[in-house]
Amino acid sequence: MWDVLFTNVHLATMVGGYGEIRDAAIAVKDGRIAWLGAQADMPQGAQAVTVHDGGGSWLTPGLIDCHTHIVHAGNRSDEFEARLNGATYEDIARAGGGIMSTVRATRAASEDELLRQTLPRVYSLLAEGVTTIEIKSGYGLTQESEAAMLRAARRIGRELPVRVATTFLGAHALPPEFAGRADDYIEEVCRMIPALAAEGLVDAVDVFCERIGFSYEQTERVFQAAQAHGLPVKLHAEQLSDQRGAELTARYQGLSADHLEHLSAAGIAAMAQAGTVAVLLPGAYYFLRDTTPPPVAALRAAGVAMAVATDCNPGTSPMTSLLLAMNMACTLWRLTPQEALAGCTAYAARALGLHDEIGTLEVGKRADFALWRIARPADLSYAIGMNPCRGVVNAGKLRSPAM
Amino acid sequence: MWDVLFTNVHLATMVGGYGEIRDAAIAVKDGRIAWLGAQADMPQGAQAVTVHDGGGSWLTPGLIDCHTHIVHAGNRSDEFEARLNGATYEDIARAGGGIMSTVRATRAASEDELLRQTLPRVYSLLAEGVTTIEIKSGYGLTQESEAAMLRAARRIGRELPVRVATTFLGAHALPPEFAGRADDYIEEVCRMIPALAAEGLVDAVDVFCERIGFSYEQTERVFQAAQAHGLPVKLHAEQLSDQRGAELTARYQGLSADHLEHLSAAGIAAMAQAGTVAVLLPGAYYFLRDTTPPPVAALRAAGVAMAVATDCNPGTSPMTSLLLAMNMACTLWRLTPQEALAGCTAYAARALGLHDEIGTLEVGKRADFALWRIARPADLSYAIGMNPCRGVVNAGKLRSPAM
Ligand SMILES: [Zn+2]
Ligand SMILES: [Zn+2]
Repeated sequence: MWDVLFTNVHLATMVGGYGEIRDAAIAVKDGRIAWLGAQADMPQGAQAVTVHDGGGSWLTPGLIDCHTHIVHAGNRSDEFEARLNGATYEDIARAGGGIMSTVRATRAASEDELLRQTLPRVYSLLAEGVTTIEIKSGYGLTQESEAAMLRAARRIGRELPVRVATTFLGAHALPPEFAGRADDYIEEVCRMIPALAAEGLVDAVDVFCERIGFSYEQTERVFQAAQAHGLPVKLHAEQLSDQRGAELTARYQGLSADHLEHLSAAGIAAMAQAGTVAVLLPGAYYFLRDTTPPPVAALRAAGVAMAVATDCNPGTSPMTSLLLAMNMACTLWRLTPQEALAGCTAYAARALGLHDEIGTLEVGKRADFALWRIARPADLSYAIGMNPCRGVVNAGKLRSPAM
Repeated sequence: MWDVLFTNVHLATMVGGYGEIRDAAIAVKDGRIAWLGAQADMPQGAQAVTVHDGGGSWLTPGLIDCHTHIVHAGNRSDEFEARLNGATYEDIARAGGGIMSTVRATRAASEDELLRQTLPRVYSLLAEGVTTIEIKSGYGLTQESEAAMLRAARRIGRELPVRVATTFLGAHALPPEFAGRADDYIEEVCRMIPALAAEGLVDAVDVFCERIGFSYEQTERVFQAAQAHGLPVKLHAEQLSDQRGAELTARYQGLSADHLEHLSAAGIAAMAQAGTVAVLLPGAYYFLRDTTPPPVAALRAAGVAMAVATDCNPGTSPMTSLLLAMNMACTLWRLTPQEALAGCTAYAARALGLHDEIGTLEVGKRADFALWRIARPADLSYAIGMNPCRGVVNAGKLRSPAM
């Protein structure tokens, strides 16, 4: 006896391409997928406590946004407007703008206030069939404030119908109190890791490796500290310049290297070898009017798995639509719609180390689904600003997209 | 005694820039704005049948999407996917794709079926505070099928809480049965005008003036027919090349010239002189990966009013978010957030000839409003894929954004 059965659906299992099964059904027991297949092949006498008629909807794995900075206070629309009215980056820095304005706002906010300001952004993702969100710290830059961000992230996972993977990104920017002492701050970041990990706040560790961020050597120190505490690593790599960050990440068996607009052939080879996922972030590319795309064709040729995420953050990608990120990945970078959907399901799961749990429709995996009123899976990448989600299932429980 | 009063709101009246009034109230009588101002200045003893507390929301004019092809059957996600998998435009044309696939699907659909397929796209716009939509024909290309499109458009205006302005775009593409006889088809289009107008289906007349569309001379014939029947004109002008369409439109006192990526200085001067609005369509520019932006700085310098619209259509802009069009206008073309909002309110109204009725918050205008959970008006252009709409008011009647 199953708990829940969805009938009259078309499945995109995302096992081997779309893995389409038309006129299908999918059954849930104890929050996990118990059976799936063509409805005509359903076992004789199969029964479920609850049966939902999908009405011909498509059913995919719940979407996974595997790279966000969604927990933060304030926004930067004032800077956006000032810049469009002619202010230079210097003007804005002089006025206290840039990432440090978000750091100030985030430090000043209580955990409750952080949560309150973050929820509308999370709801925006959840309305589009997102069932798992990765959330990074990195606007606190003190142990206390980083902890507050990560606790707010954990509360989202407890209080809302979404699974949350947390990433400690203490090495996001140099806080003003460490000006001129980046190595000292990196030592401080390494000291934070065990304390935050002991509180259960850290699923992975990330660094912003860039000329305007932290160096290759500083990144490696953080990776060593993470490894010493059994935590997997990932990296903001090669966004603005080639720092050999992807190679370093591969050497530490990193889950993912993210951005990658300036990734080298050596970086691609190293990632392919290590199985490190390439997380592509078209929102930042679009918002910054970048003109160097990541080497999608070369990544594809090398067999590197590509994920797609929003990079939701107030400075460079104030984006809260994963479907739009899929469209941008296709439109701007020529991913296929199938690659874009795999990038928000199967490969996004791998970028979080959760591919045994989520990301595809397979017996034994967690029953996280999205139901769509679409004619074919490509519609999800094709439409711009349309939300065809008609239902979301978290561990077998159906909810409406709007919360 | 007012019918409705909204208190505890901040107004962006869009009269002279944002026209901000903080801590304001706005009153409605008989579906029109009866009073607005700082709440502290409300007339002594003023009363309303219904009072809504805006809870500190921003209240703007209802948004106006002044250029759409939203009524059509089918979509073209199959072509989108084929192209990304390596198919050439030739391959797609050979397989019966392109605009003619939409013409075939639209001709085959009944008026009811057209409406059914169009409603989700309309709901997507209405959820974002849109209260007026312009809808073009142009996928029927016979009198009967063009009439069905326009009747479906009129039904949207009657059956949903939205005002609809219809535009006859018979000269959108050359139907196959007129292959090699474009002049004959233009004669046919001119013959359709009085019949469709007599049925009350036509608020304006439009032409696709382009090397791959219709010539300057053919466009002028349609404009003359429109003028002969007292209908205002507008034009798809200078999208792919300079055809002097904007100058022609200005000469006919056209409401708007739309697209304008290849607009000349002479075109700008003519538009400024005639008061013709420049309707900017960033969705198509984005989706086609165009690299020639419209001359925004020159339009601004010449004092040409700029509107922003989705161009919602299945081939070149499958976009159903006007807020996203605002963000694209700012991000890709450097409009200011204030220009983008004016472009979807005050100037969009002017592009439809409805500026005496809608587009700004002024006493006597129709009470079409949108209520927003935002910190400042620039948030509407800054956020990508977020819908902060918390209420929509059509002629004084409050509804929730979701329908
Ligand atoms: Zn990031
Ligand atoms: Zn158009």
